[in-house]
Amino acid sequence: MTNEEPLVLAAEVQKHANREDCWIVVEGKVWDLTDFAPEHPGGLESITEHAGHDATEVYNAFHAPSLLPTTLGPSKLIGKLDPSTPLPTYQKPPPTSTPQLGTQPVEKPPLDTILSTHDFEDVASRTLTPKTWAFYSSAATDCHTRSLNNSLFHRLLFRPRLLRNVQRVSTHTTILGHHVSLPFFVSPAAMARMAHPEGEKALARGCASRGVMQCVSTNASFPIGEIVGAVAEEGEGEGRRPPLFFQLYVNRERAKSEALLREVEALGVKAVVLTVDAPVAGKREADERVKAEGGLRAPMSGGEAGNDKKGGGMGRIMGSFVDPTVRWEDIEWIRRCMKLPLVLKGIQCAADAKMAMEMGVDGIMLSNHGGRSLDTSPPAILVLLELHKCCPEIFDKMEIYVDGGIRRGTDILKAICLGATAVGLGRPFLYSLAYGQEGVEHLIEILKDEVKTSMRMIGLTTLDQAHPGYVNTLDVDYLVPGTETHPYARRRPKARL
Amino acid sequence: MTNEEPLVLAAEVQKHANREDCWIVVEGKVWDLTDFAPEHPGGLESITEHAGHDATEVYNAFHAPSLLPTTLGPSKLIGKLDPSTPLPTYQKPPPTSTPQLGTQPVEKPPLDTILSTHDFEDVASRTLTPKTWAFYSSAATDCHTRSLNNSLFHRLLFRPRLLRNVQRVSTHTTILGHHVSLPFFVSPAAMARMAHPEGEKALARGCASRGVMQCVSTNASFPIGEIVGAVAEEGEGEGRRPPLFFQLYVNRERAKSEALLREVEALGVKAVVLTVDAPVAGKREADERVKAEGGLRAPMSGGEAGNDKKGGGMGRIMGSFVDPTVRWEDIEWIRRCMKLPLVLKGIQCAADAKMAMEMGVDGIMLSNHGGRSLDTSPPAILVLLELHKCCPEIFDKMEIYVDGGIRRGTDILKAICLGATAVGLGRPFLYSLAYGQEGVEHLIEILKDEVKTSMRMIGLTTLDQAHPGYVNTLDVDYLVPGTETHPYARRRPKARL
Amino acid sequence: MTNEEPLVLAAEVQKHANREDCWIVVEGKVWDLTDFAPEHPGGLESITEHAGHDATEVYNAFHAPSLLPTTLGPSKLIGKLDPSTPLPTYQKPPPTSTPQLGTQPVEKPPLDTILSTHDFEDVASRTLTPKTWAFYSSAATDCHTRSLNNSLFHRLLFRPRLLRNVQRVSTHTTILGHHVSLPFFVSPAAMARMAHPEGEKALARGCASRGVMQCVSTNASFPIGEIVGAVAEEGEGEGRRPPLFFQLYVNRERAKSEALLREVEALGVKAVVLTVDAPVAGKREADERVKAEGGLRAPMSGGEAGNDKKGGGMGRIMGSFVDPTVRWEDIEWIRRCMKLPLVLKGIQCAADAKMAMEMGVDGIMLSNHGGRSLDTSPPAILVLLELHKCCPEIFDKMEIYVDGGIRRGTDILKAICLGATAVGLGRPFLYSLAYGQEGVEHLIEILKDEVKTSMRMIGLTTLDQAHPGYVNTLDVDYLVPGTETHPYARRRPKARL
Amino acid sequence: MTNEEPLVLAAEVQKHANREDCWIVVEGKVWDLTDFAPEHPGGLESITEHAGHDATEVYNAFHAPSLLPTTLGPSKLIGKLDPSTPLPTYQKPPPTSTPQLGTQPVEKPPLDTILSTHDFEDVASRTLTPKTWAFYSSAATDCHTRSLNNSLFHRLLFRPRLLRNVQRVSTHTTILGHHVSLPFFVSPAAMARMAHPEGEKALARGCASRGVMQCVSTNASFPIGEIVGAVAEEGEGEGRRPPLFFQLYVNRERAKSEALLREVEALGVKAVVLTVDAPVAGKREADERVKAEGGLRAPMSGGEAGNDKKGGGMGRIMGSFVDPTVRWEDIEWIRRCMKLPLVLKGIQCAADAKMAMEMGVDGIMLSNHGGRSLDTSPPAILVLLELHKCCPEIFDKMEIYVDGGIRRGTDILKAICLGATAVGLGRPFLYSLAYGQEGVEHLIEILKDEVKTSMRMIGLTTLDQAHPGYVNTLDVDYLVPGTETHPYARRRPKARL
Repeated sequence: MTNEEPLVLAAEVQKHANREDCWIVVEGKVWDLTDFAPEHPGGLESITEHAGHDATEVYNAFHAPSLLPTTLGPSKLIGKLDPSTPLPTYQKPPPTSTPQLGTQPVEKPPLDTILSTHDFEDVASRTLTPKTWAFYSSAATDCHTRSLNNSLFHRLLFRPRLLRNVQRVSTHTTILGHHVSLPFFVSPAAMARMAHPEGEKALARGCASRGVMQCVSTNASFPIGEIVGAVAEEGEGEGRRPPLFFQLYVNRERAKSEALLREVEALGVKAVVLTVDAPVAGKREADERVKAEGGLRAPMSGGEAGNDKKGGGMGRIMGSFVDPTVRWEDIEWIRRCMKLPLVLKGIQCAADAKMAMEMGVDGIMLSNHGGRSLDTSPPAILVLLELHKCCPEIFDKMEIYVDGGIRRGTDILKAICLGATAVGLGRPFLYSLAYGQEGVEHLIEILKDEVKTSMRMIGLTTLDQAHPGYVNTLDVDYLVPGTETHPYARRRPKARL
Repeated sequence: MTNEEPLVLAAEVQKHANREDCWIVVEGKVWDLTDFAPEHPGGLESITEHAGHDATEVYNAFHAPSLLPTTLGPSKLIGKLDPSTPLPTYQKPPPTSTPQLGTQPVEKPPLDTILSTHDFEDVASRTLTPKTWAFYSSAATDCHTRSLNNSLFHRLLFRPRLLRNVQRVSTHTTILGHHVSLPFFVSPAAMARMAHPEGEKALARGCASRGVMQCVSTNASFPIGEIVGAVAEEGEGEGRRPPLFFQLYVNRERAKSEALLREVEALGVKAVVLTVDAPVAGKREADERVKAEGGLRAPMSGGEAGNDKKGGGMGRIMGSFVDPTVRWEDIEWIRRCMKLPLVLKGIQCAADAKMAMEMGVDGIMLSNHGGRSLDTSPPAILVLLELHKCCPEIFDKMEIYVDGGIRRGTDILKAICLGATAVGLGRPFLYSLAYGQEGVEHLIEILKDEVKTSMRMIGLTTLDQAHPGYVNTLDVDYLVPGTETHPYARRRPKARL
Repeated sequence: MTNEEPLVLAAEVQKHANREDCWIVVEGKVWDLTDFAPEHPGGLESITEHAGHDATEVYNAFHAPSLLPTTLGPSKLIGKLDPSTPLPTYQKPPPTSTPQLGTQPVEKPPLDTILSTHDFEDVASRTLTPKTWAFYSSAATDCHTRSLNNSLFHRLLFRPRLLRNVQRVSTHTTILGHHVSLPFFVSPAAMARMAHPEGEKALARGCASRGVMQCVSTNASFPIGEIVGAVAEEGEGEGRRPPLFFQLYVNRERAKSEALLREVEALGVKAVVLTVDAPVAGKREADERVKAEGGLRAPMSGGEAGNDKKGGGMGRIMGSFVDPTVRWEDIEWIRRCMKLPLVLKGIQCAADAKMAMEMGVDGIMLSNHGGRSLDTSPPAILVLLELHKCCPEIFDKMEIYVDGGIRRGTDILKAICLGATAVGLGRPFLYSLAYGQEGVEHLIEILKDEVKTSMRMIGLTTLDQAHPGYVNTLDVDYLVPGTETHPYARRRPKARL
Repeated sequence: MTNEEPLVLAAEVQKHANREDCWIVVEGKVWDLTDFAPEHPGGLESITEHAGHDATEVYNAFHAPSLLPTTLGPSKLIGKLDPSTPLPTYQKPPPTSTPQLGTQPVEKPPLDTILSTHDFEDVASRTLTPKTWAFYSSAATDCHTRSLNNSLFHRLLFRPRLLRNVQRVSTHTTILGHHVSLPFFVSPAAMARMAHPEGEKALARGCASRGVMQCVSTNASFPIGEIVGAVAEEGEGEGRRPPLFFQLYVNRERAKSEALLREVEALGVKAVVLTVDAPVAGKREADERVKAEGGLRAPMSGGEAGNDKKGGGMGRIMGSFVDPTVRWEDIEWIRRCMKLPLVLKGIQCAADAKMAMEMGVDGIMLSNHGGRSLDTSPPAILVLLELHKCCPEIFDKMEIYVDGGIRRGTDILKAICLGATAVGLGRPFLYSLAYGQEGVEHLIEILKDEVKTSMRMIGLTTLDQAHPGYVNTLDVDYLVPGTETHPYARRRPKARL
């Protein structure tokens, strides 16, 4: 694509303005989308309604700039719009549903008035589009697990030790051998671009500047290469940069996943995090209720949002590429595809944790997908306690991460005291994107302050001093299973089926 | 009743327009109701106010078409209204109370926006008549049990097992040897016609089309024969149809019950479900507060709604035919009346479950009548756990069903994991009738999706893989009695009368 | 006081219209209140503002007719108002506070729409005067015990036994050998006249007509003799009448209590109930906040309401006659005063229950004064369970009554199953008085229906079949102390003063 | 400063009206603040905006009268304003934020309508300035501990013993050998002048008049000498005065703390209370959100409020002088500075309590800083129970105080029964200051009445009769750790940094 592209007059473009002959202008380039439109994951119509028009604005709301040339290839580039002949934007008729993308014209409070993750959430609920808010905030069916994830942390009390010199406090730790400034990371979450045009790239830059690990989702709005590139552009030396992990959903077309893993490895990503708690999508009713308007597509997975007879559930429809046949045996297949450390995300009981240990994986993330997969699945902190009861040796064999419901430095510190290597936060980082990279950095600073204050208040100066003795877990201990099976675990009668 | 019925002029009908001489037209037929009116369970006046008029509309709101000829016999048929002489409908004066039957003129949201049982309930609360809503939704006194029924399920957490191939999932199972597509059924509930003119017939057709078992109430709005017929009309082969069960309230006039049981057996019903938890009606205050306007009658039981000095409690007044003397010894009497399998519905403690087992009944339904009989009676899921503690051998001897408070696929799966053969839902099916048969089918599809997703999320592909190890019951275990008697179970002092 | 009283002209009365010379007309009689006014427990001013006027209306709102002649004696009767010279009622200036006595001009719903104690309470809250409502409904400080009293009952679950012949159910029992129709009674409560002019007399008549025991308070609005008389007037035979008990607050002037006990015994009362949980009045802030307007006086105790610098707390100010020195040793003194059975009301732990047993009293009432004495004192049902744990033999030695928070037939039946002989209800009976005697009878019928239905639902036909096995107490068992002392019950350090 | 100060004309003052040459008049004295203004902790501008004006009013709102001469020294006193030449007050432009000091022009209800600490709190929330309310009422992050502090008390039930002579009740006790009238004291709290111009002096006078101990904060609005003096002025004999304790925050400049301790000892203060639970300030978001307007300074500590990029958190910014390096070893240093008894405030687990015992300190105050330091830190009452479980011998070795969440006489009595020597209340005393000294005395009378009534209700006449047997702690016992370490207290894996 060079300056030698032919100039095309607006009047010429306007002749190709129907389904069978569909030219569209994006960022001054004229593309022939006739062949592609029927394959558009967001639906044929969301392209053809722009035929013969300038669709730059709507394209940018959904897609990374690099997507168009990559997807169509140079043969579909007709040329460059003659700048002297402006082309109108397609004027959509008055919408019958609420718009679903882009930010709403609501004024955000100044960033320095945001004191906590709750403040970020509050702003997000008012300024994100209804569809983005529904997709990010929703959880499975009655949302009991989403609530429990957070509320269980409040039932853990600290047992502070006092009169120690806590002037200097370090929050540094390592994750799989990589130094990080803080014991928390960005949990993988889909489609960060819905909150901000820079999406995962803004997250990556914010994390890099603060030494925080980021785990990128297969369903990210940008290709992993661009996200890695976003940090490299910053010019920081590789040695000082915090690690980037890559979350994997196995594609029904396994070859695609293989290629992706090879690409990821080549890009210098430090570990692969295989999600195991979402063989199918959870039922998130808030997400279903808000119709998806245009097409949203995750470049890596190819997952696309849309609507069907069950509603507009973005998680469900985008997740349709995910292979529900993945089994323990497939761990070997993944290992053959790349040499990176492997972490399993979504472990929810001691039995599976032990299985992971026996398979020799490098870490497990105790998680219930933010309560988005199965309602009344157990909060990670309960599973963490279950490991202490059922298989304490696991803490010496692998790293244990925790996510779900973490909103405060106190939550983070409790998880660390109870044996977690590090903890992940998902939604809070998405919400911070309402302010772009600056929001991400502000969120990290808030949490860092909270972690440091909490450490000082219980008498710690480094994280390796943390241990369960600093936490009173008695209010939740009765909920923790002590065996891998239920005391009533007799088989159901053979009379069945 | 043939075409040879004499034609009657409207003017002739209008001459018989008072209490002592009362002709009424229904569906074009002229009936003499003079003798019957004083016996009308809905009250004399609700008939005589229509004397000399066409009462088709109001009749249909309350009664099945077959009721009139069956009740009156051919001798009361005067003839056929001459179609050339239209007869006006009785214009009731402006009502002094809210109307109690028929649907309200509130627009229902499109069926495809209904995502859950909660949505159906919400629509029902706004579109059913106040009386119907009060009758269906009400529960005994302070409604603690109705709440507990549902809330206890939320306190059971799953213990998901991951990384299994869950692409193909089967929800098939058997109930008393009959194949069904899903491990839930329609619990018996009275007077489905209050929600929809097709009432239990719409339920039957919806269930038949989806392979779901239905248990028909003695207090159904249609005779059991018509309900059986409704499915047969659909032309589906007997072998593929899901089973129909019949719920029995023993009539104070035992001979009527005997006749009914013989009829039921002859109709091909697969089992009889004897309700044992309602020797008298519970006190449902919401139901009492809304006056019953016309007469509602259950054709099978003969139970009729109305008002008395205590209020308009439909459950109470309709239930007055129920025999409160039924004892364990009467099980033998029922068995002599028919050869069908027998299930006891309403068992609420291990001691009675064991008694049932010793009596050799084929199944028990743990139930508290949807919280409608006795407030603070135990939720079925607690009784299910009690069986594990007190008499685990029972699971090999008979089938155990559970109902009350089940609103989600997760609830269903938990009950199955804990040993239930299948579970019943009552109110949700009544609420789905606001959309007729289509609503019933939509509800079944919703629950099916939820069950399948939940199975996949915990790692099951067939229901016979389910066992208690998939459920963490620790949050409710302390509520489960471990013995049949109370530790303080000393007799009260002999001084007592 | 005869017809020979001199006639007094209105103009003559009007001459005695100030503090130093104060005549007042009540029910057509002219009284000289000059000497009495300064001693008026309701305050001087509340009398003198009516000087020279007809005060019949305000007098009747507060006092029984018999009070005036009894208190003043015949010497203060000036004569009879000449009926031809009407005397105006004192027109009070617009009030600066809300009126506190008499019913408000709010229309009550028809009695047959009242279905429960909750309905009675709701009506009372809207129709009683603010002062009456505050006095009746208030409880100590933060009202935790008032709430717990009721909520603990909901946490007890039934364990119903089914398939028993429950057609005929008897609610009869005996209390200290006296037959009663129902296992509940009217707990003693002060000043029933604030709700209805017939006060305790209406309660007595309602109870007599329904076979329910009544326990009359020392602070009743009528002398015990009048209450006994109210029933006798009804002409019912002594043998068929339910027993009347008398609640005693010991007067600081012990001689007055002695006289009262002798009077009570002579009147045929069946037992004396000594209140032991209120040596001083509890702090009921709602009661304090509403100023007492006129004077209210309990004829038996002489206790009077009023205002002081702490507020208008009727319970506190009226209770000032109560002797806080009463000790176990005084039990003997009471026994010397009369031969009636003796019950201690307000026992709140096993240790005191055992003490009562050792003293040979005839019964104890587990009670916390409706939560009005000490906030966070234990609900009676907990103490009842404590007796089972700590001294089960007590149930064979004496009768145990329970009150506090009982609002449903289910509550009553649970207490009976757990060993109570009978239970008391206080506030519900006061609230029922908004409808007078008819309200009392309606309340009794409601509770009787609820008790009978509950009995049938759990499989009882007589109360002596009740035992703890019908109740699942597991949800509250952890709250029940198993020893008389605390595990940490070391003495506090001697260093303490 | 004498009468010989030169007279200065207003016109002369007005010539020095800018940043570089800044004279200001306070209480008729002319001061040169040019040099001091840049060091003003409340900010330069809050002084210079008053240059050339009379700033008496604003000065008095923030500072004690003695502060100015002490801080500036006599050399900065220009002279006395010529009274014949009045100088205007600086008219501030309309504020852009809410004012933060002084009381709002909202009418307070009469003091005799205040019945409880809750009433005082309610009035304070409506009449204090937003900043004062935010500073006083706020607590750390999500305020769980602030809530728990109070709610745990409600879950302790009494076990009253009855039929004891409770006419005479004494609430006297001793604290470290000093007689006090009541077993509660004023917990140290910063900046009482924000609620009332007399601040801690009003507290001191109120306490002295009622025999209540007061513990003065390092961050008091007045120098300790003035507070001591305020009581001495009252002319009460030393022997009858209740003791005054002094709370210490160690200054980063240790010499300042040494001087302060020596001053305190010389003033006759009875004990030093070292705060150990706030090495840094907690994160109190309500406090951060309300900007501080002018400068507030604690004379003893030198701590000053203000705003920075994190907000206006007064606790945080004022606390910046606190030394976070203080360790157990520094106890010896403090002892070398003075001979007074030493109490450690903020102990939160048995291990630290034992350490304090081994160090031979005289008492410990179980406290979590009113929930202001670390959210989900344990309520003091839990720690008190932990001492009974883990080191009961401690009750014989030292005095144990408790604060946090105490709002009722019942709370106080429970703590005493469970072994506390006395309990502290902080916020309630600050709130009572809305009414000045009279409010303080009214609060003490309220609590005294509540304590006495509670004692009578459980059968106590003196506090040394109290013991744990009077309290049922079963509802919270499960939360109390029985060992100093957690059962899962294995070290975290060595792999950690």
